[in-house]
Amino acid sequence: MSRIDGRTPQQLRPVTIERGWSKHAEGSVLVSFGDTKVLCNASVTEGVPRWRKGSGEGWVTAEYAMLPRATNTRGDRESVKGRIGGRTHEISRLIGRSLRAVIDYKALGENTIVLDCDVLQADGGTRTAAITGAYVALADAIGWAQHTKKLIKPSRKPLTGTVSAVSVGIVAGTPLLDLCYEEDVRADTDMNVVCTGDGRFVEVQGTAEAEPFARDELNALLDLAAAGCTELAELQRKALDTVLGK
Amino acid sequence: MSRIDGRTPQQLRPVTIERGWSKHAEGSVLVSFGDTKVLCNASVTEGVPRWRKGSGEGWVTAEYAMLPRATNTRGDRESVKGRIGGRTHEISRLIGRSLRAVIDYKALGENTIVLDCDVLQADGGTRTAAITGAYVALADAIGWAQHTKKLIKPSRKPLTGTVSAVSVGIVAGTPLLDLCYEEDVRADTDMNVVCTGDGRFVEVQGTAEAEPFARDELNALLDLAAAGCTELAELQRKALDTVLGK
Amino acid sequence: MSRIDGRTPQQLRPVTIERGWSKHAEGSVLVSFGDTKVLCNASVTEGVPRWRKGSGEGWVTAEYAMLPRATNTRGDRESVKGRIGGRTHEISRLIGRSLRAVIDYKALGENTIVLDCDVLQADGGTRTAAITGAYVALADAIGWAQHTKKLIKPSRKPLTGTVSAVSVGIVAGTPLLDLCYEEDVRADTDMNVVCTGDGRFVEVQGTAEAEPFARDELNALLDLAAAGCTELAELQRKALDTVLGK
Amino acid sequence: MSRIDGRTPQQLRPVTIERGWSKHAEGSVLVSFGDTKVLCNASVTEGVPRWRKGSGEGWVTAEYAMLPRATNTRGDRESVKGRIGGRTHEISRLIGRSLRAVIDYKALGENTIVLDCDVLQADGGTRTAAITGAYVALADAIGWAQHTKKLIKPSRKPLTGTVSAVSVGIVAGTPLLDLCYEEDVRADTDMNVVCTGDGRFVEVQGTAEAEPFARDELNALLDLAAAGCTELAELQRKALDTVLGK
Amino acid sequence: MSRIDGRTPQQLRPVTIERGWSKHAEGSVLVSFGDTKVLCNASVTEGVPRWRKGSGEGWVTAEYAMLPRATNTRGDRESVKGRIGGRTHEISRLIGRSLRAVIDYKALGENTIVLDCDVLQADGGTRTAAITGAYVALADAIGWAQHTKKLIKPSRKPLTGTVSAVSVGIVAGTPLLDLCYEEDVRADTDMNVVCTGDGRFVEVQGTAEAEPFARDELNALLDLAAAGCTELAELQRKALDTVLGK
Amino acid sequence: MSRIDGRTPQQLRPVTIERGWSKHAEGSVLVSFGDTKVLCNASVTEGVPRWRKGSGEGWVTAEYAMLPRATNTRGDRESVKGRIGGRTHEISRLIGRSLRAVIDYKALGENTIVLDCDVLQADGGTRTAAITGAYVALADAIGWAQHTKKLIKPSRKPLTGTVSAVSVGIVAGTPLLDLCYEEDVRADTDMNVVCTGDGRFVEVQGTAEAEPFARDELNALLDLAAAGCTELAELQRKALDTVLGK
Repeated sequence: MSRIDGRTPQQLRPVTIERGWSKHAEGSVLVSFGDTKVLCNASVTEGVPRWRKGSGEGWVTAEYAMLPRATNTRGDRESVKGRIGGRTHEISRLIGRSLRAVIDYKALGENTIVLDCDVLQADGGTRTAAITGAYVALADAIGWAQHTKKLIKPSRKPLTGTVSAVSVGIVAGTPLLDLCYEEDVRADTDMNVVCTGDGRFVEVQGTAEAEPFARDELNALLDLAAAGCTELAELQRKALDTVLGK
Repeated sequence: MSRIDGRTPQQLRPVTIERGWSKHAEGSVLVSFGDTKVLCNASVTEGVPRWRKGSGEGWVTAEYAMLPRATNTRGDRESVKGRIGGRTHEISRLIGRSLRAVIDYKALGENTIVLDCDVLQADGGTRTAAITGAYVALADAIGWAQHTKKLIKPSRKPLTGTVSAVSVGIVAGTPLLDLCYEEDVRADTDMNVVCTGDGRFVEVQGTAEAEPFARDELNALLDLAAAGCTELAELQRKALDTVLGK
Repeated sequence: MSRIDGRTPQQLRPVTIERGWSKHAEGSVLVSFGDTKVLCNASVTEGVPRWRKGSGEGWVTAEYAMLPRATNTRGDRESVKGRIGGRTHEISRLIGRSLRAVIDYKALGENTIVLDCDVLQADGGTRTAAITGAYVALADAIGWAQHTKKLIKPSRKPLTGTVSAVSVGIVAGTPLLDLCYEEDVRADTDMNVVCTGDGRFVEVQGTAEAEPFARDELNALLDLAAAGCTELAELQRKALDTVLGK
Repeated sequence: MSRIDGRTPQQLRPVTIERGWSKHAEGSVLVSFGDTKVLCNASVTEGVPRWRKGSGEGWVTAEYAMLPRATNTRGDRESVKGRIGGRTHEISRLIGRSLRAVIDYKALGENTIVLDCDVLQADGGTRTAAITGAYVALADAIGWAQHTKKLIKPSRKPLTGTVSAVSVGIVAGTPLLDLCYEEDVRADTDMNVVCTGDGRFVEVQGTAEAEPFARDELNALLDLAAAGCTELAELQRKALDTVLGK
Repeated sequence: MSRIDGRTPQQLRPVTIERGWSKHAEGSVLVSFGDTKVLCNASVTEGVPRWRKGSGEGWVTAEYAMLPRATNTRGDRESVKGRIGGRTHEISRLIGRSLRAVIDYKALGENTIVLDCDVLQADGGTRTAAITGAYVALADAIGWAQHTKKLIKPSRKPLTGTVSAVSVGIVAGTPLLDLCYEEDVRADTDMNVVCTGDGRFVEVQGTAEAEPFARDELNALLDLAAAGCTELAELQRKALDTVLGK
Repeated sequence: MSRIDGRTPQQLRPVTIERGWSKHAEGSVLVSFGDTKVLCNASVTEGVPRWRKGSGEGWVTAEYAMLPRATNTRGDRESVKGRIGGRTHEISRLIGRSLRAVIDYKALGENTIVLDCDVLQADGGTRTAAITGAYVALADAIGWAQHTKKLIKPSRKPLTGTVSAVSVGIVAGTPLLDLCYEEDVRADTDMNVVCTGDGRFVEVQGTAEAEPFARDELNALLDLAAAGCTELAELQRKALDTVLGK
């Protein structure tokens, strides 16, 4: 079976990871999974939220949002509505938890890093692109804090690993990797999987959109996702290997 | 290994499902998983949200909340804060999706059922208790709509199956079923699993709280959860088999 | 004249006061006035609001709310609407003032007690049931603070008396005690009266729903309410006399 | 005993009722009770709120607010805080109920009158001044709707009586009429009483600020208030008797 | 060409500046530009916002609002809507900036002055009347702080000049000074100009309501506005020259 | 005098206008004025706001926002704060008015175009870049509505001209065109000017940040701005002349 855009079921969309996109943020990555484009900016500040003060430990959190016309039809701004929707809350929390899974709070020291993931254009998989890009922005921000500003001692290792994410789903009976919007809409089951670079799971969120799924379908999706995350981890590594002229 | 409350790793807490708790709601269930108590009220109204009008299809949705002192320390009311938190949003959406997985919208007709799941006392697993109890309240509300008010033709079958949920987690290296609060706090991995009565999956949400988890750990947790849901489905069936004197 | 539920005009509905309902709160009472059920949880915390710091005096406050389906038709959640309605505000303030009327702030010391009164099922008189139940929860919370946690010296007497409340109204020309919902809807005049155990008044709130009322009608209602509160004070005393096994 | 401002216990402050204050409103009254000044504007619109459509009946409602510097120290604006406080809600509802007590909804027809009561300067008794002034603005607005705009047939009588309000309280053991701010602060008991012109009660709201009050104290306060309202009704009548050149 | 109210194009409406209007505020001015009436209350408090603490410098800010029935048709209260509209924000900011243009923060010391400008009746030019009146209230408040409360040393000069404002516009091809509401609605171009007493510009805000305007039209409007502000500055001087008996 | 970035006082920063940036919006422009980058998306929908229905006329409006890390230090999201700030409101309104100045509502028909201007990176002049870019997006959206979707008859001319904007200011005594952030901070006077392509003014907003400005300074700034807008109009024309492959 050939997919809408000609990919095989096991194939990721073209992925680009552009570091140093904004001149202000300590880490700034424009990540794209096909037509999905997310700007991930990492902001480092000295100090931690009040409930963590004096602990000697740092904090990492994330905020996700979509531009009103990132999608095919315009959505109302959450700032204008005066409240954040459930979906936005859910994804912001997911990104934060995913990144914290590879953070050594002690090594980070009492510093806070906020990851702003703003979807500039959406075509499915915005949360997984956001996690994958935000990891790279986070790594850059930590590097900046160690080498430029000296907030974190260069000898420390605040990152205990790498983290990436991908969506999988069953469309017309076939498990597919990295769904684009059209596939996502038609999927019976939709799963977002976050893995560390060493192949372990950080988050598994599977939802039966139409039909409940059987254990073997779940297994097939997990296989597909684990392979996809391994590939993304390699792309992250390559992106971070280049020298950033900033 | 014996658990805090003396259970085996594969054992549910004592579960009670009390139907007809409130005199006003069309379906009203006080469900308890050990010391976790959730009041699930189902409200049936004729008509559907605007975006669904004229479709001939119904709608099922849910709202979850905790009383301020359901927990060990008092939490501020979301009504007083003027906004709903991310966790509340997330759980409300999860309950709604889980119930909709066993609904035939056409058979429901243009009617709406809202499930209010209010946690009166919390001791871990409030969302899974809520789903398990809400299913029973939903079944009662549909029965009421068919037999008392005739909103739904008695010949139709709006429910395509049953749905229940349970939490599982790895505590000190051991996979455990149905975590109480103290176990939940100490868990490395925490997973909520929603299954249909025929053993398929509706939702799988696993989170590495501390350490990422390996595939075999994930498999052990899924086994445990599937068995727990089967047991809960049987308890739901028994509860619904008794005659409700209302 | 016989009432809807067979009571005489001077008769209260069956009243139950169940202490120790929730395991978490320092004082927890499920009070029922007929089919009206209110869960009153008292939370004790060391310290006082900022405007009272350093005064050596404590504070007691209350928050009232109804579950969405406590009533015959479902009401929208105030947390979802993002604002608290006027009626909720009004009743919360009334409960707080009523309880503070029997508090010696000095004896309480710089501690705060919050009374959460959540209506689980409503059938008229929710505010008066809440005050009556909240007093008992408050007494339990103070006992706990004196004997378990030692926040308040056992020699002190933070409570200067007892407080209870009841509704009265004129229905079809007859003054009635403790209106149920159906009577309340039909009442020309509706009054809520809060009394101390020694028969004095803390709050008198009378409203002409339809026809303005004459002075002798007001007097008849006050007589009825004072007698009702005396009866409730006796029920509170009995409830507090039993030993609470917690 | 002489009062702060030299009045006897039974004496009102100087009361002025200035009609036609604003050129835009259909009824516009600047009422003053001593240094308390409230601008009461009545706005008439054709039609009623949705829940009343087709009933053939009208609606009257009120909104109360204070300018930020109406008081001795500046208060934050409720519009800036983004929410209306409990006190504001409570008073707005009280004014609305008081005015509706003398309205014949049928005679009003499907028209709505909103009374905006804005406190320009506060010195105690703002809610009672607001009710007293709003009644006059309401009468003017109804006159306008009958004679200028023909929204209401001139033969109809939408007003079934008159309504006025006054505060009373016990200060240092003496019952006093129409408390100014300094007296209000020192009062043990504080009561707001709303009466119709024929001497019946519309609202009685008594609160023990410090000490609970006995039945004979309550009686003394009601006597004082009833006499005060009679006096205010006479002042309202005189104000409305003059010809308004508009 | 004669204007609606008989003025010449270069003529202001009758302007009154009534000082000491409210007894509570440190500066209180009821300003009227024809039928536009704005109450400007200045509140002085010791201390400054957090971001300015320790700077030795003071702060001046303003809040503008309209009573709901200040206009011909009633507007909803922003406190009820729960949010401040863009127009209100814009004008509040404009008034604050205009006043700060004549403030020497150092001479003011770490004190804050808030100007509340509440429109009691509107007939065009509310923002310019507000600025003109607020300046006088500000001057009174500073005088009070220097002579009564000693917050500011009498030897200091926190005011570096005077400030007033006026609207101008092109109606039917003719540039007009100080537009009333009916003229404002019909204007092609509308400009608000804020000047210091020595004839320099603080703010120039010109908007093409219908047709873009040419440079020579802009020049004509600026000439008109500058002359109007000079006249207003003289009226402010006269108002402040009288002795305020407070 | 040479400027920070080597420009002459009369020189714009490098300006780029990239059309077709997003694949979803009917008009999508990424505009940059030096390091200031604003994404302007135009969304066309059939129909108009309720207050305009049946008029036969269309509507154009705009919403401006900044990404949290568009600036040097991270700003809190307005969606998270739950309210839009005054500055955001002000700029959104300015953009909308500026674009409407060149719209023939009749020719637009009952269609609405919303311009979302999201600042991805800020370095001064975000509102003027937004207006300049939004005009181009608007032109593209109208073209799309005429040629692709036929919402507007191709024979009509909804655009009556072109519009662009630029900032000017006096820094250290010298009038400068198109201030970057560092210049803006140091400016005594700051002015935003919006012009049509034929050299007339749509908006002139000048503010004395420090020192009030004299008439000749104002004139010098207007000269500079008019020349800058002419240059920008030429750049817009060139951008629109190229064929957009979409």
